[in-house]
Amino acid sequence: MLSTTHRTRLNRAKERGLTDRTDLYSVLDAGMVCHLGVIIDDGPVVIPTGYGRIEDTLYLHGSSGARSLRTGGQVCVTVTHLDGVVLARSVFNHSMNYRSAMIYGEARRVEDPAERLAGLRAITDQLAPGQWEATRQPNARELAATLVLAVPLAEASVKVRTGAPLDEEEDYALAVWAGVLPRTEIWGPLQPDPRLEDGIPVPEHLRARQ
Amino acid sequence: MLSTTHRTRLNRAKERGLTDRTDLYSVLDAGMVCHLGVIIDDGPVVIPTGYGRIEDTLYLHGSSGARSLRTGGQVCVTVTHLDGVVLARSVFNHSMNYRSAMIYGEARRVEDPAERLAGLRAITDQLAPGQWEATRQPNARELAATLVLAVPLAEASVKVRTGAPLDEEEDYALAVWAGVLPRTEIWGPLQPDPRLEDGIPVPEHLRARQ
Repeated sequence: MLSTTHRTRLNRAKERGLTDRTDLYSVLDAGMVCHLGVIIDDGPVVIPTGYGRIEDTLYLHGSSGARSLRTGGQVCVTVTHLDGVVLARSVFNHSMNYRSAMIYGEARRVEDPAERLAGLRAITDQLAPGQWEATRQPNARELAATLVLAVPLAEASVKVRTGAPLDEEEDYALAVWAGVLPRTEIWGPLQPDPRLEDGIPVPEHLRARQ
Repeated sequence: MLSTTHRTRLNRAKERGLTDRTDLYSVLDAGMVCHLGVIIDDGPVVIPTGYGRIEDTLYLHGSSGARSLRTGGQVCVTVTHLDGVVLARSVFNHSMNYRSAMIYGEARRVEDPAERLAGLRAITDQLAPGQWEATRQPNARELAATLVLAVPLAEASVKVRTGAPLDEEEDYALAVWAGVLPRTEIWGPLQPDPRLEDGIPVPEHLRARQ
């Protein structure tokens, strides 16, 4: 179960809140981009970036010079999937079907070399599974240029909306079409690098994904 | 042109920065969900939510009770489109093709009734064009329950990455497949509300979209 704190207790749309840890994992594991919120110069900054998960730790990375990550500190990481537009009989009851997770925590700068490598591997596996083994591993210079942050999956909320619109009872009599327009993300066909040498086959893990 | 401030000046990957106002508009106009960053109790909070644009103003809405929006104040609004996974010859040079916009500003609580309606209409049009005219308009109770915020599109940065991986020159000799796995969002077939009355046709603006 996810613990409830004053930040993760849902004040709005409580019926959309899920509290199983597996719900959190499934929202995170289905995504590729998170939105990382940090405070810089007393103002909020929201950065789109990749991430990876190992059990109850979320890993993020960036350039070791990035001012947004250098300081660590309090962060909020949000992952959102838009699953459809909910077309109601009134403007007010229009909505989205979605799955989202919000994680609050202190970002820890990872220094241990083995944990840094494991974190980077998790981030690569999230975006491009199979590629860690298939491509050249990070060298010392690249590792030095990379900052790895860890956020514990300790304080989190998960919200999911599915299904048909919820209209005001009297609006169901209106002659207005209502329902859901589903939204999905799909992969397109692989585009080879123009500099790809002849005779290098598409590896199976990429062929399977497109 | 977008003005450059200390927040919107890109420190990393400068070659991905775009400075035309039309680039900002096109990233915003292609999206449906933004990630709104605010500070609550001294910590960052990142909320996925809908939005709309009228010229140089971004509109957001929420419940008039939502603690995340009630206070107004400094916000950062980020809209991100993932266009593909960039598969490089080294782990380090893996990347994403994306379009993103980050807007910094003071959120103004909209009080003027005409601007409130216009803002709500822009938000509806962004998510579900044609539905404002086709469905029941907001009534006084619904309007009272809705907070509308305006953020000026004055301080913003736009970043876009497209195309093939950029590998280290010596890595091009590796026998590693490299290229791009494109990612697209598509609409699925409309799903009628189970409570939809017989004989209500799908309106043309929805039929055209699916």
